[in-house]
Amino acid sequence: MADVLEGEEPKLSKKELNKLARKAKKDAITQEKGGSQQQQGASEEEDYSKDLYGSYGLVNSKEKKELNFLRVRDVNSSVANQTIWVRGRVHTSRSKGKNCFLVIRQGVNTVQVAMFLNDKISKQMLKFVSSISKESIVDVQATVNVAQSPIESCTQKDVELTPLQVFVVSASAPKLPLQIEDASRKAPSEEEKNTDKENKLAVVNLDTRLDNRVIDLRTTTSQAIFRIQAGICNQFRNILDARGFVEIMAPKIISAPSEGGANVFEVSYFKGSAYLAQSPQLYKQMAIAGDFEKVYTIGPVFRAEDSNTHRHMTEFVGLDLEMAFNFHYHEVMETIANVLTELFKGLQERYPDEISAVGNQYPAEPFQFCEPPLILKYPDAIAILRENGVEIGDEEDLSTPVEKLLGRLVKDKYKTDFYVLDKFPLAVRPFYTMPDAHDQKYSNSYDMFMRGEEILSGAQRIHDPDMLVERAKHHAVDLAKIQAYIDAFKYGCPPHAGGGIGLERVTMLFLGLHNIRLASLFPRDPKRITP
Amino acid sequence: MADVLEGEEPKLSKKELNKLARKAKKDAITQEKGGSQQQQGASEEEDYSKDLYGSYGLVNSKEKKELNFLRVRDVNSSVANQTIWVRGRVHTSRSKGKNCFLVIRQGVNTVQVAMFLNDKISKQMLKFVSSISKESIVDVQATVNVAQSPIESCTQKDVELTPLQVFVVSASAPKLPLQIEDASRKAPSEEEKNTDKENKLAVVNLDTRLDNRVIDLRTTTSQAIFRIQAGICNQFRNILDARGFVEIMAPKIISAPSEGGANVFEVSYFKGSAYLAQSPQLYKQMAIAGDFEKVYTIGPVFRAEDSNTHRHMTEFVGLDLEMAFNFHYHEVMETIANVLTELFKGLQERYPDEISAVGNQYPAEPFQFCEPPLILKYPDAIAILRENGVEIGDEEDLSTPVEKLLGRLVKDKYKTDFYVLDKFPLAVRPFYTMPDAHDQKYSNSYDMFMRGEEILSGAQRIHDPDMLVERAKHHAVDLAKIQAYIDAFKYGCPPHAGGGIGLERVTMLFLGLHNIRLASLFPRDPKRITP
Repeated sequence: MADVLEGEEPKLSKKELNKLARKAKKDAITQEKGGSQQQQGASEEEDYSKDLYGSYGLVNSKEKKELNFLRVRDVNSSVANQTIWVRGRVHTSRSKGKNCFLVIRQGVNTVQVAMFLNDKISKQMLKFVSSISKESIVDVQATVNVAQSPIESCTQKDVELTPLQVFVVSASAPKLPLQIEDASRKAPSEEEKNTDKENKLAVVNLDTRLDNRVIDLRTTTSQAIFRIQAGICNQFRNILDARGFVEIMAPKIISAPSEGGANVFEVSYFKGSAYLAQSPQLYKQMAIAGDFEKVYTIGPVFRAEDSNTHRHMTEFVGLDLEMAFNFHYHEVMETIANVLTELFKGLQERYPDEISAVGNQYPAEPFQFCEPPLILKYPDAIAILRENGVEIGDEEDLSTPVEKLLGRLVKDKYKTDFYVLDKFPLAVRPFYTMPDAHDQKYSNSYDMFMRGEEILSGAQRIHDPDMLVERAKHHAVDLAKIQAYIDAFKYGCPPHAGGGIGLERVTMLFLGLHNIRLASLFPRDPKRITP
Repeated sequence: MADVLEGEEPKLSKKELNKLARKAKKDAITQEKGGSQQQQGASEEEDYSKDLYGSYGLVNSKEKKELNFLRVRDVNSSVANQTIWVRGRVHTSRSKGKNCFLVIRQGVNTVQVAMFLNDKISKQMLKFVSSISKESIVDVQATVNVAQSPIESCTQKDVELTPLQVFVVSASAPKLPLQIEDASRKAPSEEEKNTDKENKLAVVNLDTRLDNRVIDLRTTTSQAIFRIQAGICNQFRNILDARGFVEIMAPKIISAPSEGGANVFEVSYFKGSAYLAQSPQLYKQMAIAGDFEKVYTIGPVFRAEDSNTHRHMTEFVGLDLEMAFNFHYHEVMETIANVLTELFKGLQERYPDEISAVGNQYPAEPFQFCEPPLILKYPDAIAILRENGVEIGDEEDLSTPVEKLLGRLVKDKYKTDFYVLDKFPLAVRPFYTMPDAHDQKYSNSYDMFMRGEEILSGAQRIHDPDMLVERAKHHAVDLAKIQAYIDAFKYGCPPHAGGGIGLERVTMLFLGLHNIRLASLFPRDPKRITP
């Protein structure tokens, strides 16, 4: 990508900008002192704008200063003819001879600044402003003018700013590793990918994005994705708080692998070693045995799986909950499904702009769900699959492609992207899963799916220590390693069930993104632990 | 501690209880079938209560059943003469001959059940109920009677329950590793510790508590502490959400130690190695450089410090925030101090009962603070210390005892347990701290204190990559290891400041607890990573 277009002022580095600013200042002082203009060389002219532009230099809290900044989103015709200050990034910059057009960006909002050489804006000022590199942060004082025709390239279409003062707050290096414009471009369809190769516009690949995440996060799409993600956490907590859940904090350093020895990261712990929790489940369950009744926790979950897929990460955020019930685990399963339904509704109500912004870059069908949520029994799902030609045993787990196919079949039949699959075969679930009371081939366990991909796995847990020992032996789990787990249930524990939800999966699948890494601020996978 | 008091029925294990329940059932069936009572032995009599008690056996979701349980906190004279169901634990159990008194506990609420041998309650039923071990979970159907005189031993003082049915939901082992009563006892004063040794009541030591955390969490004090802790997180988020902050998730697995090589845990990461983040600071800062403007994150923080003190843990929960500012870091420092002040107010408003419950076991002066919060300059604090005989250099850091002394002096002078100490000497702060613009001996950094102990450390961060390199070199930090950190500031970054707050420290110091482990659900220190 060429940073410098023909006929434009070359963009300067911070040092060069500072030099330019210092020179302007010096020239000005020389003039003030009555120094001869001639000494500065023939090209120097009096800079009548000398105090109206420059660089703040390092903002190191030298002085307390109050400028009443207006948010760019509020710069519109309601403040027409007023003089305002805005702080934002130079999103684009075009200059030629006697004018310079900047677009100033603040978050997802943009406004145009149009600068012309005149008796207030000197040649030097024009040159300085033209030289500010894209992504630099600037303070602009300006008069708000109603635009003659809508400014289609900006979010603030009905106004344009006429600058009075421009100062650089923080300069960007002139050469960017990726352009915001390219990183924001709509992903090409398969068809587009294959045609018109000559003229096709740059698309930023995922690794470049993630290597330069700081810049990629500035795109409207990233801003929207992570605001929605914050919204998911916020709603999850609010909905559960309203239902009497208590937030708990579960430790991540544990003495023995919580789900058996596979896929666990080992930590050097002083002279010994420890592990990173693969789930907060034991701790949620201990909180239940400790009489907190209904608990949730949001925190990192670590899986040492060497899976390099679109939906696996080695560290992700778990939205975990656990709940004592009276007589039947469906009390919990239905609660979770209702919580998620309420959450989806809340997101659609609260984030319509963000959802559509993401859709502009990554088009997807709007997320569909039904009320009450659809609950399918495992044997019924197997039947649907068989009707559609899939060969699968009664007690066989679903492979990822089969899950996806099932998702499509369910969507066709029930018009929902969200559903619960209840009563998984006992054989495919962990040892602590309560067997079905009527048919030991099955279990009191469930998964929940969005767009055909699993986002939650949960179950009634065995709360009886003797039965837990028996089931652990059956699964050849080392009893010595899970003694603390078993002991937790010795002193009376209410029957309980729960589940763990992957935050990034919910974000990805709610928005219909194609890769989970887009929904993780700083994703971790077997090949990436930086930045 | 003797579990079985003289004259009481011995408490039975789950197996024995089940056997007793089965035997009662069998006897009943035998009777129904017209079997001779004589066959059952001379001591057997017809059990006219046979269907009114027993054990549910394993609650494995055999059937969906609805009992309309009343919360114990709602069992009061407003439901006098009604028949209700409650589910709770057997908190205490006293029986002798023809009566049995249970106290049923649900969370922090307790109610008395008084059972007498009569034409509805058989000898067998009385024996069964008397045999239920403490901490077992039971369902009781009962009539609510107004108590003749207040029942001082229960939270529900004005009523007493006359049971109709009693079923065991989950039986506790009869021998408890610690007694709730002992674990709830008010900590003895220094004076009490030294006198009356003969008659002094058992106090549960910290290790026993933590080894058996599941039981210790059931005390009124633990229930209150962790509800308050959840409240701290809730308020922190709500207050920041209202101020336009965005919640972010920071990774915990990192490629290089974030604060230099000391005190960091190493993780085996596939064929290489990684580290556990000592703070989310870099990621908060990258989010700022990524234009999120104001961010916070709540999550685990790991410190491989071999410190075995009352206030250090190897894993704790950080309440971290970071904020772009316009001209001066005080914009941020004052925001944080105000957020905390608002948080303290919110806790005192929302959790008066919990605060006083904790105070019953661990007496402490109510937490005092002033508005606006007190901000002291470091040199002024040094002056106060010197006035009080402490020898300390201008650029010396505060030791823990000196911090505590300063806390007491500040409290005497300003009547506040919370204050901000601003402008720490540059020499004692990390390399990324912005030096003071006017005196390079000092820095734009601050700590915040509660009851004389540090709960937050924060600063304006250097947002200029060249200056960051220079300061890193000065601190002999390996530049290669912090390249990603430095690069984050190359493409324009607003001036920003922030801080990290220790959740457990805030909990501990707000309540005046003597050990941070009491404020961590499952504390981790160099000697403890279990349960």
